[in-house]
Amino acid sequence: MTRTAALILIGNEILSGRTRDDNIQFLATGLGELGIPLREIRVIPDVQATIVTTVTEMRARYDEVFTTGGIGPTHDDITAACVAEAFGVPWEFHQPTFELLSKQFGENFNAARQRMAKFPRGATPIPNSVSGAPGFTIGNVHVMAGVPRIMRAMFTALAPTLQRGLPVMSRTWHTTTLFEGSLAEELEHIQTSYPHLDIGSYPFHRQDGRRGVALVAKGQDEDAVIKAAEAIYELIIKKGGSPVEGEAPP
Amino acid sequence: MTRTAALILIGNEILSGRTRDDNIQFLATGLGELGIPLREIRVIPDVQATIVTTVTEMRARYDEVFTTGGIGPTHDDITAACVAEAFGVPWEFHQPTFELLSKQFGENFNAARQRMAKFPRGATPIPNSVSGAPGFTIGNVHVMAGVPRIMRAMFTALAPTLQRGLPVMSRTWHTTTLFEGSLAEELEHIQTSYPHLDIGSYPFHRQDGRRGVALVAKGQDEDAVIKAAEAIYELIIKKGGSPVEGEAPP
Repeated sequence: MTRTAALILIGNEILSGRTRDDNIQFLATGLGELGIPLREIRVIPDVQATIVTTVTEMRARYDEVFTTGGIGPTHDDITAACVAEAFGVPWEFHQPTFELLSKQFGENFNAARQRMAKFPRGATPIPNSVSGAPGFTIGNVHVMAGVPRIMRAMFTALAPTLQRGLPVMSRTWHTTTLFEGSLAEELEHIQTSYPHLDIGSYPFHRQDGRRGVALVAKGQDEDAVIKAAEAIYELIIKKGGSPVEGEAPP
Repeated sequence: MTRTAALILIGNEILSGRTRDDNIQFLATGLGELGIPLREIRVIPDVQATIVTTVTEMRARYDEVFTTGGIGPTHDDITAACVAEAFGVPWEFHQPTFELLSKQFGENFNAARQRMAKFPRGATPIPNSVSGAPGFTIGNVHVMAGVPRIMRAMFTALAPTLQRGLPVMSRTWHTTTLFEGSLAEELEHIQTSYPHLDIGSYPFHRQDGRRGVALVAKGQDEDAVIKAAEAIYELIIKKGGSPVEGEAPP
């Protein structure tokens, strides 16, 4: 069974270049292992109309939608209110979360922090073992923090609750004596023979001058991945190259 | 003058987790300096209909659109053909590029490599000082390689040809003794006083246990950025914190 996922990164810090993303690769890998491969990623600013439209569009198109960012206590943390609007439900206090945070913050549980206890009606919290304030799931939308350590804790708590698909398998060969231009034609034949797999060709060009190409067979049909990887191995040999399993070292 | 940019990363390697993105931050920073800040990023697979739709949508919505990936010689390198389709023009050999690559590859200039000399009709090449095969510009769409070293060379060649806007300025303070929950309310007042700026609040939580928050004033009005940054400084002092200029060290 093929299940699909989309990821929405909400906030200005990636768009402005302030922050280098540290969430995509973790989630892409984790979702591949769960058999819910990522099909699209969007990075959008914390602008209400943009968030509402994007969540509405993506949740109709993909089986599972994950968001990161915009669930803290400040004025630009508007993700939860926007997701409520996308679902057409009220954004209101979630009593158990209110009590949890009330205990955690004590007399510092001010109005700003209380916003972190407001979810769309009907949402289920995603536990946050790092800093307390939970994310939440509503329908097929999973709302997580943007801070990588917190996001990872949330995803780890969330993962066992997700309906899995077939895990994505992949096998990679690389060569440093051939370039993709000399392999392209036969590689396309391998792709044609295994239409349900992704046959990828990834040239590399290292700072120290090492060049070459990594060829990847990837998909949810393990048997086909093994056969396609054998065909890639034989193609490299036929072209006079020396296939090395795995990615080229950095 | 405010100009806007969007970025489309084309290919499966980011979506599958195989590769960690190394292009977004470079382009986000460079475009901010040119006064053409990034407003949206999409990461999409090399699926024809998805590329055509995304390019069509984004080029109507933003002043400049940049793509990376999918311009090599292999079967999954379909960006140029898709951009031609999005513009409703033929995808055909660009004679000067054909000659350039013919000279470079000599007798190895096979059918696969010749594809790299095909652009949408009316496109202008973007020089590639690293590996030869150029990207191209058509209308407001700039098509670049996905390999970071090559993309950077192309963007560096492209940048002087772009119409600039006002550069984005920013000023940052951080504190390790306050958290964003205690600053949120007054921070919102600063945002309200400077509606054209982005007043951002970015909590950090380091592996070694250091925690705190960085507060950023950012925008294209230098005078307003300076004043808002002063207000942020005073807010941190008022709350009993010690503002330190810049981001917290990693």
